[in-house]
Amino acid sequence: MLRKLLAVSITAALALNATNAAAETVSTERHKVSVNTITDKLNKPWGMAFLPSGELLVTEKSGTLRRVTRDGAVSDALSGVPSVVDKSQGGLLDVAVDPNFADNQFVYISYSEADPAGGEGTSTAVMRAKLSDNGLTDGKVIFRGAPKYKSGAHFGSRLVFAPDGHLFITLGDRYSAMDDAQTLDNHHGKVVRIKPDGSVPADNPFVGKDDALPEIWSYGHRNVQGAAIHPTTGKLWTVEHGPKGGDEINIPDAGKNYGWPIATYGVDYDGSIISDETHVEGTVQPHYYWVPSIATSNMIFYTGDQFPAWQGDLLVAALKGSHVARLDLEGDRVMHEETLFEDAVKQRIRDIEQGPDGYIYLITDDRAGQLIQIKPAE
Amino acid sequence: MLRKLLAVSITAALALNATNAAAETVSTERHKVSVNTITDKLNKPWGMAFLPSGELLVTEKSGTLRRVTRDGAVSDALSGVPSVVDKSQGGLLDVAVDPNFADNQFVYISYSEADPAGGEGTSTAVMRAKLSDNGLTDGKVIFRGAPKYKSGAHFGSRLVFAPDGHLFITLGDRYSAMDDAQTLDNHHGKVVRIKPDGSVPADNPFVGKDDALPEIWSYGHRNVQGAAIHPTTGKLWTVEHGPKGGDEINIPDAGKNYGWPIATYGVDYDGSIISDETHVEGTVQPHYYWVPSIATSNMIFYTGDQFPAWQGDLLVAALKGSHVARLDLEGDRVMHEETLFEDAVKQRIRDIEQGPDGYIYLITDDRAGQLIQIKPAE
Repeated sequence: MLRKLLAVSITAALALNATNAAAETVSTERHKVSVNTITDKLNKPWGMAFLPSGELLVTEKSGTLRRVTRDGAVSDALSGVPSVVDKSQGGLLDVAVDPNFADNQFVYISYSEADPAGGEGTSTAVMRAKLSDNGLTDGKVIFRGAPKYKSGAHFGSRLVFAPDGHLFITLGDRYSAMDDAQTLDNHHGKVVRIKPDGSVPADNPFVGKDDALPEIWSYGHRNVQGAAIHPTTGKLWTVEHGPKGGDEINIPDAGKNYGWPIATYGVDYDGSIISDETHVEGTVQPHYYWVPSIATSNMIFYTGDQFPAWQGDLLVAALKGSHVARLDLEGDRVMHEETLFEDAVKQRIRDIEQGPDGYIYLITDDRAGQLIQIKPAE
Repeated sequence: MLRKLLAVSITAALALNATNAAAETVSTERHKVSVNTITDKLNKPWGMAFLPSGELLVTEKSGTLRRVTRDGAVSDALSGVPSVVDKSQGGLLDVAVDPNFADNQFVYISYSEADPAGGEGTSTAVMRAKLSDNGLTDGKVIFRGAPKYKSGAHFGSRLVFAPDGHLFITLGDRYSAMDDAQTLDNHHGKVVRIKPDGSVPADNPFVGKDDALPEIWSYGHRNVQGAAIHPTTGKLWTVEHGPKGGDEINIPDAGKNYGWPIATYGVDYDGSIISDETHVEGTVQPHYYWVPSIATSNMIFYTGDQFPAWQGDLLVAALKGSHVARLDLEGDRVMHEETLFEDAVKQRIRDIEQGPDGYIYLITDDRAGQLIQIKPAE
């Protein structure tokens, strides 16, 4: 398989050099950067994660998982991916690599899953499996959102590991079930926290509480599609889509209510306000928000050496804006926002990751979806 | 005088209705507002302050001080204003009204003052005087920036009273003397704190220190033209012009160094960086900053009843941007920035104040300078 991949890689690299070496130099406030389209052979990619080898695992919404090299070689579809409901916003979504992958070869995928009982509802599920050369084996569903619900929208979902080894799964309110985000007997509009084997940590905030699902970490979210662990505090940060405006960054604390749908900064398309209620007793204010919406996807804290002036900054990718918002942080506090790459990236940005090389990688949400590498300009 | 003013007022109001009733309705994220040009009969106004009567005192850079009613009646020039050096950025600058004005009738003006000894240098001075119907009497210079220095630029200056009765005066680095901002034997690039009679508070941070001027409160500033007291913490907040970018909000603490010119976020016109040094040991990071510069003038914390969703927000006026930046605060933390009035205001905004009626007032930096009233739309 390695030999095969290598051969694919070389072929793809040649093809890239021949037809697709799209690179653009962009000046930003603190760095001059080169924006390079590595490949456009991805079909609606959604999530990506780096393996220790430096290769990427990339999901495609239709239900395929591929290996992609940083030269742009895209593998055949890997086997062992479960059946997904590829409809509206649903499909194969995020992928994460176990922090101990070298020892256990575990990877995690999130997806919209049909009702095993045969009903019309779907929900976000998470499978853990072992990654072999050809694909996934020993798949086990470690989380299954409840209830199954008939909606094609707002599945979340992003997978991130906390420094203590717990797995955070960010979820959506399933749109028409938005009121569920305020009650604890379901997973709609929640961030959940589990152990990598699917069991519930004993110190989760609602363990042992009546009428509360024990996986819940925080609630009152709308559709959380971005998450990252702060590199010095180790705390979870999330970013969620607001209602036609009001995209929010939160720092979800255990057991806290982030307000949706009873408190929001969202505004309607004509600029009029949806609700007077931005502050509701018992709910936490966002840490930062955007009106109008930029349609936030994923985010990272940049910690690499390639862009020294961005170290510690929060980079938030935007679907609608086709840009990356750089938030310059001092401690947790946002001091400044810069809009990056908006003229150099033409497609909706679906995921952002930092490579082992310190470069920044983007994938775009298109049938000719791109993998884009950001590196310092020569 | 009152009768005369009333007559002027009625005449002006009629003129206004006849020729100049420029009002524009603007939708913002949280409020629909009416932007009304009350008068355009101000000649390069710089500062304004409300008297307990509800009238405004307005400075014009050329050296005139006027009363202006909220109907747009502009008085003749008041007498008793000292001679000012109206050249480049210098002239008659800010005006403040004593918190105990009803008892003592004191007002304060800042201005660029020639060297009394006859040299070519100038510096920012502050005069306290009593306001009578016709003008100022009993004028006393309570602060005189040192040294006098030959430059037409960066005089500061904004005057604000702390809740404890001390007067803050914000200053500039005089441009070519920028390095002075890092040493304490001069007033360039400083915020100073004095008593209203000009004496030095015993608890100022550098009192009794060798080679330090005792009026200094904080240092390492570039050109501070905006200042306001936070309505709940009572702390001083300032906003200063950065070098072609890097406008900064700071919360100046006693004795602290805010970094100019050794640390800056400023970028050059072509987008390249001026300095790699944004973080320098011993200097305080800005609380928030803008790149590119919006050219910040003054700012207020909005506390009125007319715009409930803006209560507690910081409104920062911009010269270059001809807009007001609304910073939505949670505690001290900026959660969101909205750009207000940018299409409705055509001129550089030089000062912003909240009226006793809860409306927001702007003056613009033009030979046909405007007084603009912002109120809720019908």
